Amino acid sequence: MKLVYRLTVVLAVVAVLATPVLAADKKVRWKLAMTWSSTLTPFATAPFNLAKMVEEMSGGNFVIRVEGAEKHKAALGILDMTKGGQYEMGHSASYYWKGKDISTVFFCTVPFGMNVDEQNAWFYHGGGMELMQETYDKFDVLSFPGGNTGVQMGGWFQKEINSLEDLKGLKMRIPGLAGEVFAKLGVNVTNIPSGELYTSLDRGTIDALEWVGPAMDIKMGFHKIAPYYYTGWHEPATELQFLINQKAFEELPPEYQTMLVTAMKAVTADLYTDNFAGSVEAWSQMKKDYPNIVVKTFPPEVLAAMKQAADELYDAYAAEDPFFKKVWESQKEYMEKARTWTQISEYNYINTVNQLSE
Amino acid sequence: MKLVYRLTVVLAVVAVLATPVLAADKKVRWKLAMTWSSTLTPFATAPFNLAKMVEEMSGGNFVIRVEGAEKHKAALGILDMTKGGQYEMGHSASYYWKGKDISTVFFCTVPFGMNVDEQNAWFYHGGGMELMQETYDKFDVLSFPGGNTGVQMGGWFQKEINSLEDLKGLKMRIPGLAGEVFAKLGVNVTNIPSGELYTSLDRGTIDALEWVGPAMDIKMGFHKIAPYYYTGWHEPATELQFLINQKAFEELPPEYQTMLVTAMKAVTADLYTDNFAGSVEAWSQMKKDYPNIVVKTFPPEVLAAMKQAADELYDAYAAEDPFFKKVWESQKEYMEKARTWTQISEYNYINTVNQLSE
Repeated sequence: MKLVYRLTVVLAVVAVLATPVLAADKKVRWKLAMTWSSTLTPFATAPFNLAKMVEEMSGGNFVIRVEGAEKHKAALGILDMTKGGQYEMGHSASYYWKGKDISTVFFCTVPFGMNVDEQNAWFYHGGGMELMQETYDKFDVLSFPGGNTGVQMGGWFQKEINSLEDLKGLKMRIPGLAGEVFAKLGVNVTNIPSGELYTSLDRGTIDALEWVGPAMDIKMGFHKIAPYYYTGWHEPATELQFLINQKAFEELPPEYQTMLVTAMKAVTADLYTDNFAGSVEAWSQMKKDYPNIVVKTFPPEVLAAMKQAADELYDAYAAEDPFFKKVWESQKEYMEKARTWTQISEYNYINTVNQLSE
Repeated sequence: MKLVYRLTVVLAVVAVLATPVLAADKKVRWKLAMTWSSTLTPFATAPFNLAKMVEEMSGGNFVIRVEGAEKHKAALGILDMTKGGQYEMGHSASYYWKGKDISTVFFCTVPFGMNVDEQNAWFYHGGGMELMQETYDKFDVLSFPGGNTGVQMGGWFQKEINSLEDLKGLKMRIPGLAGEVFAKLGVNVTNIPSGELYTSLDRGTIDALEWVGPAMDIKMGFHKIAPYYYTGWHEPATELQFLINQKAFEELPPEYQTMLVTAMKAVTADLYTDNFAGSVEAWSQMKKDYPNIVVKTFPPEVLAAMKQAADELYDAYAAEDPFFKKVWESQKEYMEKARTWTQISEYNYINTVNQLSE
């Protein structure tokens, strides 16, 4: 035992001596590529603030240059570019990689899934972070939450949806799993570049579209040309994503690793608040300027059909892919438990105050 | 203009030269005092994690020693001790200082006030941070959000509350503004040290008490001895607080200032998630072990009287104190705008899914 003890002391001393002195003075220059343009607030705000924090904390020694899609021209190449090391980091959203691995959707949001509180609890206390990393290990990248939009709105519609019949043949821009759900219900789902959306909706090329929520929708101007704003079901807690090249992260001094992880958590929290506050202001402005906007929730018949279509979709993917099944079951189980608490806490409180003002 | 430009350059150069080289290698030793004991998770977890992050980021140079109330024996002396400089930092809750300044309550939570999303948006985009600092400037301390419990439960009751009559003479432990509201409705409000609460409720010294929520209540054991668990109205978003001695903060190298601010934001976000996840697990456990626990919401008649009593209380304080009036009006105005958005986003989503399963 004594020998082991001595050996441990010797190894500890060697380890201390081997640690580079003033590791935090090491100059590190990184690049981060975003799926969004540099002006798309509040999404782009998070990486810019992350870079600012890390630079300040390191006394100017750890610098991250943030590039928007207007520069690198590869909005959906973020995962590949981070994997390949052209960029040490990326800021994107996990569901963009569903073509590479369908399970990536769970680390962003899924139709009728968890809300933001439930999803964060799942990430950090329900095994979500571990399942996410298991998914991204095969791409040689680390993945971290990158800021949440909360419940996204169901979209802007030119006419009311009163029945399943009204969905048949409807031309709508709605991507991802939600698009697959709508397609099952007879919607003619299309994808249109964001720059052409306003004109497409205005000219009747499409009848409806979904974007994000008031904070970001207001800049697109959809509220000026479509009267119905439907509430959300399809993206209840869209989590953006920081990607980091594994090798680049491992080569960082430990000080910088902690700076990066801490700053990611800080800007992730800020993004949710920024987007919520942005929606508070934007929704207030929209209602003032366009008092005839009608907020609608899809009728129960339509929602029930959407839910059934979503469940069929998950079942089909789960039958093909055991890892998808594993993650989906983890989320379903956690959501069931967590929703019970959401009901009697956050939901019940708003409900209680509502009843007071009735 | 040219002269001004040259002067600016000269001043900038002087500023750079005056900056200590390798400021981030400066050894700094701080102490942080908590209102809670070191074992009271998840509250105490936040300062301990803050200290860990800051130490790692500074390569061991910036060390914060965290002390629980079991050591300093001054749970409610945190503001004074931070002001006086015995501790450079504190972790507490703003409403504990209402005896020194009634406006401090707004930086924690108030009955029928904002939920956590709304309050965070108010802090960072509705003028809340500025009003908080205006309040704390007189104590020579900085104040930052320190982690939120979300909606706290209304408490454990031995019998059902079916009317205002049932509140008359009820012996209850409920502190703060909520206690003042209940006192107006005839409740016999008492304060009892936390260590004696279980016995007091068990032996009938009190008929009811409020604590926090499942995550923290489960450790107290109240669910074993009281059958009714009432939902929340009085602490809709209890925000804990980091206090920092202003002079100590100003003397920190800028690197350490950013480390501290960034780490506070990170652990603040974590605390909310930790507490939410803790309540998910604890509530699930309580229901399993004690399936007869009944979750109740106070009847509309009682809630309306509570709301009226709370409004009268705010009006009375506002009539005496112009600063209280200013902060209360800022919160009311922001809450009205923000609640509209909460309704159609987070609240509507849970409501939509509820209807599906009916």
